[in-house]
Amino acid sequence: MERNSRNIYLKSAEFVEAVEGYQQAMVKRNIGRQVELLDTKAGLNRVTAAPVFARDSSPNYSAAAMDGIAAVSERTRGASETRPVILEKNRDFVYINTGGRVKDPYDTVIMIEDLVEVSSNEVEVRSSAPARQHIREIGEDVVKGELILPSNHVLRPMDIGALLAGKVETIEVYKKPRVGILPTGSEIIDVGDSQEPGKIIDSNSYLFEGMIEEAGGTSKRYPVTEDDYDLLKERILQGVRENDVFVINAGSSAGSKDFTGDLIKELGEVLIHGVAIKPGKPIILGFIQNKPVIGIPGYPVSAFIDFKYFVQPLIEDLAGRKATTEKNLTVTLSRRIVSSLKHEEFVRIKAGKVEDSYVATPLSRGAGVSTSLVKADGILRIPKGLEGYEKGTAVSIQLMKELKEIENTLVSVGSHDVVMDLLSDRLQWNRRDAGLSSAHVGSFGGILALKNRECHMAPMHILDEETGGYNKAMIQSHFPAGDMGIIKLVKRSQGLMVPKGNPKGITGISDLAGEGVEFVNRQRGSGTRILLDYHLKRLGISSGDIAGYDRALTTHTAVAAAVANNTADVGLGVYSAAKALDVDFIPIEWEDYDLVLSKKYLEDPRILEIIDLIQQEGFKKKIENLGGYQTDEIGDVYILEKTEEETTWQKWYPST
Amino acid sequence: MERNSRNIYLKSAEFVEAVEGYQQAMVKRNIGRQVELLDTKAGLNRVTAAPVFARDSSPNYSAAAMDGIAAVSERTRGASETRPVILEKNRDFVYINTGGRVKDPYDTVIMIEDLVEVSSNEVEVRSSAPARQHIREIGEDVVKGELILPSNHVLRPMDIGALLAGKVETIEVYKKPRVGILPTGSEIIDVGDSQEPGKIIDSNSYLFEGMIEEAGGTSKRYPVTEDDYDLLKERILQGVRENDVFVINAGSSAGSKDFTGDLIKELGEVLIHGVAIKPGKPIILGFIQNKPVIGIPGYPVSAFIDFKYFVQPLIEDLAGRKATTEKNLTVTLSRRIVSSLKHEEFVRIKAGKVEDSYVATPLSRGAGVSTSLVKADGILRIPKGLEGYEKGTAVSIQLMKELKEIENTLVSVGSHDVVMDLLSDRLQWNRRDAGLSSAHVGSFGGILALKNRECHMAPMHILDEETGGYNKAMIQSHFPAGDMGIIKLVKRSQGLMVPKGNPKGITGISDLAGEGVEFVNRQRGSGTRILLDYHLKRLGISSGDIAGYDRALTTHTAVAAAVANNTADVGLGVYSAAKALDVDFIPIEWEDYDLVLSKKYLEDPRILEIIDLIQQEGFKKKIENLGGYQTDEIGDVYILEKTEEETTWQKWYPST
Repeated sequence: MERNSRNIYLKSAEFVEAVEGYQQAMVKRNIGRQVELLDTKAGLNRVTAAPVFARDSSPNYSAAAMDGIAAVSERTRGASETRPVILEKNRDFVYINTGGRVKDPYDTVIMIEDLVEVSSNEVEVRSSAPARQHIREIGEDVVKGELILPSNHVLRPMDIGALLAGKVETIEVYKKPRVGILPTGSEIIDVGDSQEPGKIIDSNSYLFEGMIEEAGGTSKRYPVTEDDYDLLKERILQGVRENDVFVINAGSSAGSKDFTGDLIKELGEVLIHGVAIKPGKPIILGFIQNKPVIGIPGYPVSAFIDFKYFVQPLIEDLAGRKATTEKNLTVTLSRRIVSSLKHEEFVRIKAGKVEDSYVATPLSRGAGVSTSLVKADGILRIPKGLEGYEKGTAVSIQLMKELKEIENTLVSVGSHDVVMDLLSDRLQWNRRDAGLSSAHVGSFGGILALKNRECHMAPMHILDEETGGYNKAMIQSHFPAGDMGIIKLVKRSQGLMVPKGNPKGITGISDLAGEGVEFVNRQRGSGTRILLDYHLKRLGISSGDIAGYDRALTTHTAVAAAVANNTADVGLGVYSAAKALDVDFIPIEWEDYDLVLSKKYLEDPRILEIIDLIQQEGFKKKIENLGGYQTDEIGDVYILEKTEEETTWQKWYPST
Repeated sequence: MERNSRNIYLKSAEFVEAVEGYQQAMVKRNIGRQVELLDTKAGLNRVTAAPVFARDSSPNYSAAAMDGIAAVSERTRGASETRPVILEKNRDFVYINTGGRVKDPYDTVIMIEDLVEVSSNEVEVRSSAPARQHIREIGEDVVKGELILPSNHVLRPMDIGALLAGKVETIEVYKKPRVGILPTGSEIIDVGDSQEPGKIIDSNSYLFEGMIEEAGGTSKRYPVTEDDYDLLKERILQGVRENDVFVINAGSSAGSKDFTGDLIKELGEVLIHGVAIKPGKPIILGFIQNKPVIGIPGYPVSAFIDFKYFVQPLIEDLAGRKATTEKNLTVTLSRRIVSSLKHEEFVRIKAGKVEDSYVATPLSRGAGVSTSLVKADGILRIPKGLEGYEKGTAVSIQLMKELKEIENTLVSVGSHDVVMDLLSDRLQWNRRDAGLSSAHVGSFGGILALKNRECHMAPMHILDEETGGYNKAMIQSHFPAGDMGIIKLVKRSQGLMVPKGNPKGITGISDLAGEGVEFVNRQRGSGTRILLDYHLKRLGISSGDIAGYDRALTTHTAVAAAVANNTADVGLGVYSAAKALDVDFIPIEWEDYDLVLSKKYLEDPRILEIIDLIQQEGFKKKIENLGGYQTDEIGDVYILEKTEEETTWQKWYPST
C-alpha cells in the first residue's frame, strides 16, 4: 500500500465521484484480477485470461467423412455407367465408417450408396473418384496453433467443445473473486431461528449471495454478529483474511451502535462514507489490508441498490466479466414523481405496454419494501438537482426484465383481492412467457388508470349510493362514450376485523365511534373506504368521531395485520384477509368485485383466456374454499352500449 | 405407457412434425415436471412449482425507521420553538435505534437530529410529533398471506430476499431433470487419453454438459463406450435407470456399427429416425422405460444443432423454464447461399454492423467445424424447398450473441495472419464490450468486401507484378475514387514449407514441378497464390506441371498441417505457420502485409486504438518473437489522394 493513497480520503461524495474514486483507489493499490489454471471441462462461464491457441489439429488424421470404402483413386479412373471398374478388397480398397482413418495407399472415400458389392471381396464403382473426396482433412475443424479464443472471453458450451477438440485440456482463467458477507445487528436473526417480535430475519445476505453468483464471484456468509465492537472487529479481520472482497451489512449509518465506519477506519481506511443517492446513501467504501471492504445499509432496497451499483461491478471486474450492459426502455410516466434535489434517486418502476405505448408507474419508494424489487420491471434514475418528473414525461428506465416479458404482460390497476393473485398464478401457469401485473391503488385509482390508458383492466368494487348496486353506475358516469365491459368476478364478504375474541365487543359500524376504540382505515379512493363512508353517513356518524380514521393502509391484509398485531382495535376488510391473519370477522355486506375494461380488449386472447379460466370448476372451487366468496356470476360479461336514446348493459359472449 | 402410443411411429419427419410429435408423445406418456421441496436459500435460478404466499409479516412488529427516541406522541402536543417540551426518559420516551421495537406506550419516533439532550434523563422537543411518525408498520415490507411469487417464476436474488423476509423457509420448485450422456464409438477417446492418429477426442459430451446446465438440468456423463452392442445395451439400461432423459452420441447414422437405432428399438420404441434438417439429419427420438432417449449424430455442429433444437427445449420444459426467446436480427447477405431443397438448413452466420447496415456472411457449413459455432453470431434457417438466397437478400437470423456486441465489433475480411489474432486478443483486452471479427477469405476477398461495404477493414498482401510492390497498386486500380487508407502492419517471410529434414530435397519454386513432388496450394484470390503464380510465370513453369496445384486450402496453418502430416510434400506459406507446426522452411520473399480501409474509418476510435496499439513496443516485440516478421513500418498510415491531375499516397497522422 502506498503511503500517499491515504490522502484521497473523501467523506461523502456524488455517485459518479464515488464509483470512479473507488475504482482509481483499486488501481493505485494494484488490486486486480488473479489468474488460475483450470480444467477446460470445468470452464463454463469462466473468463479466459490469455488467448487460447489449439494444441493439436482436429481431426489429426485424414478421416472418412462418409460410410463406405477408402480406395486408391487412381484405380477408379475411367469408371462409368457403361464401363464399371471392379475394385479388390485390401488392394484397391478397405471398408471404412465415418470417422475412420484413411491410410496410405488409400486417398479417396466412396459412399456405400455409390457401390455395388459384387462379392465378399470385390466392389464395383461406376464413376471415377477424385483424390481426397469425402475426406475430412487434418485440421478441418481446428488447426494446431490456431487462435480459438481471445482473452477476456466468457466460455460458452460451444467454446468448451472447440477447446477440447483442439486438445486444450487446461486454460488460464480469472479466479472467481471470493466475497465475504457479514450480517450484523443485535436485532438480526438467522432464517429458521425462532422469531420474537423485535427481531428481523437476515434476508440481505442471501440477496447478496445470489448477486455475487450472478456477477461471477463465490460467496461466503459469516454468522449474524451482534453490535459488539470487539466481536465485530474479530469477524471482520477473519473475513478480510479469507476473502478478496468483504461486505458488512449493516451498521453503516450514524446510530449509536453503527460501528462499521469506525471499524474500517481503525483496521484500514475509509475512502468514502455516504453517497448522494437515495436509497442507499449511507454506504461506506474502504480498504483493510489492501482488500476492498464495503459497508452497506440494512434496508433491503438500499442494500440492493448499493450492491448493484457498487459491489457487483467490482466483482465483475475482478472476475474478468464484461460489465453488464444495461438495457433501457423509454416509457411514459403515469403519474408525477417528486424527487429530492440533494440526491440522485433510484425509483423502482412497473412498466406495461398498453395500446402501443409503454406506461410506467413508480412502485413503493420505501427503502424497506423488498417486494418492490420483486415487482419492478426497471429502475428510473432521477439525477440530483432535479425536482422530479411531471406525469406524462417520457423517461428512460434501466430494464430489470426482458422487454418481451413486459410486452406480453397484462396490466391490472385497481383494487386488490386474493382472487387476482390466484388469477395471476394461473395465467403464469398457462402462458409461460408472460403474466399479470397488478398495481393496488384502490378502485378509483383503477378508473383513473382506465381513463388514462395506463392499464388493460381494472378490478373494482364501487358502491353506488343511490342504487345500492356496484360498479356499473360508476362506469356509466366516468365513461360517457360507453364501449366498456365488465367481467363479473366474485361477490365477497366485507366486514369488521377485530382481534381474536373481540376484546372491545364490537358488533357493527356504530361501535367504531366508541370510547377507547382505535380504528384503522383504508386509503382514499378505495372501495372499502367508500363502503365505510356510505354506512357512516347512513348512521349519521361523523368521521371526526372515529379515532384512527386518518390512519390509512393500502391493502386488506395490511389492515388485518394491524388488527392482528394490536396496533388497531378494528378495521374494515374482506373475510379472506381476516382468515389469513387469523383475526375475528363481523360480516357487514356482500359486495361485487368485478373486472372492468375497455370493450375492445374483450377479444384479446389473453382476456379470453381469463374469461375461460375463471369459469373452470377448479378455479371456482379454489376461490370458494377461501371462504367469504360467492362465484355464481363469475365469467359473465356485460358491455355498456350507448346510443342517443338509451344506455344499456348487454350480455356479451366470445365470438367463438 | 398406453398400448396405442406405439401406433404413432414415424420413420423420418419434417422439423416441426418431429418436434411436435415428440412433444405429444411425451404428454401421452405423462412424462412431465416433478416437484421437490427446497431450502429457499438454495433457490437461485430454480422455478416455483406453486404460488408462494408470505408466512409472516416483515417487520412483524412496529419498528423505528430512524435513530432517535420512541416517545408518547400525546406528551409532545403543543411543543414549538418558543415553547419546547421536556420529555422524561422511561416515562415519556426511550432511546431507540433504526429497526428497534416501538413498544406500548410509545407510539411515535423522533429523530435524534430533532432533539436537544437536556440531561442524561431528559430531552427537549420543539415540535409536536404525530402518532406513528417514523415507524415501519407491521407488514410494511411483506404482509402475512400476501402472494410473493406466482408459479413458474425463475428465482432471482431479490426474489429469495423477499421470500426470506416473508419467512418462507422452503419452497416447492421443479426438480432439475437429470440428463445422462453416453459418448460412444470405437474411434472416440477421452480428453487426456494419449491420442494416436485415428482417434477423436470426445468433446461433444462437454458441449452437452454446458447446454444441459444452461437449460436448467443436471448432467451425468458416462464413460466412452466402444461400438459393442451388448456393452452399449448395458450402459443404456443403466443410464435410463439413473436419469430422466438419456442422450446417446453417436451411432445414430446408418453405418455398419451404428447401433443406436436398433438398441432403442429393442429396449423401447423409436418414434422418429431422421429429420429433414441439415446439419443434424440422423437424429433418433425414442423412449425406453417411459423416459425420453435421444440418439444424436457425432459431428460437432450436427450435435449442437440437434441438441439446441430438440434436447434443450425438452430439458427447459421439464425444468419449468420458460422457453428461451430467440432474438432475431434482420441482416443483408454478403454472398449467395445455396441450400438443399430436401432439408431445412441451419447456417452459421457471422454478422457485423458496417455503415448502419447489418452485413452477414455465412461461416463454414461443414458439420465437423466446431469452431464455426464459436465464431457464429447467429443462425440462418433456410426452409426446406428453398434453393437458397441471393446475395443482398435481407434475411432474419436467430442471434447467438448480444446485439450490442455485434454492433461494437470491428469486421475484418481478407487475408489471415497470426498478427490479426494477436490484435484481436489485445483489442478484446482493452475494449471489453467488443472485439475484432476476422473472416479469412484471402486478399482479393478483402478487396471485394471493402468495395461492397461488408467490412471495416481488409488485411492483405497483394503483389503488383509490374512494380514488385505490395497492395498500393491494387488499391489504386480497384478504388478509382481514392479516399482509401493503408495502415502498415508487417513485412513477413513467405517460403516453402517442407516436412522436417526436407525429404524431397526442395530448394526453391522450380522444384515444385519435380517428379514425385506433391504440392498443396492456397485458394484462388489469396495473396500467397498470386505470389506463387508470379514466380511460376517468371520461371516459365506451367501450373499443369505441378501435382496438387488444384488442391487448395484456405489458411497458412492448414497448408503447414498438410505438410506436417505428410499429405503433401510442400506448400507455400509464412514462416510463423511453419514454426507453429514444426515443419522446415525455405524462405522465398519478404512481403508487405497491411491493413486497408476506407479513409473515413481512420478517425473511428476503435481504429485509432489499433494504430496506437500496434506501435507499442510490447506488441512489436510479441510479433518479432514469432520469427519471420519485420515491424519497421508498423503503425505508419498512408492515404490515397486523387485529384484530376494526380494520384498520390500521403502520410497521415491522427488529428490529436
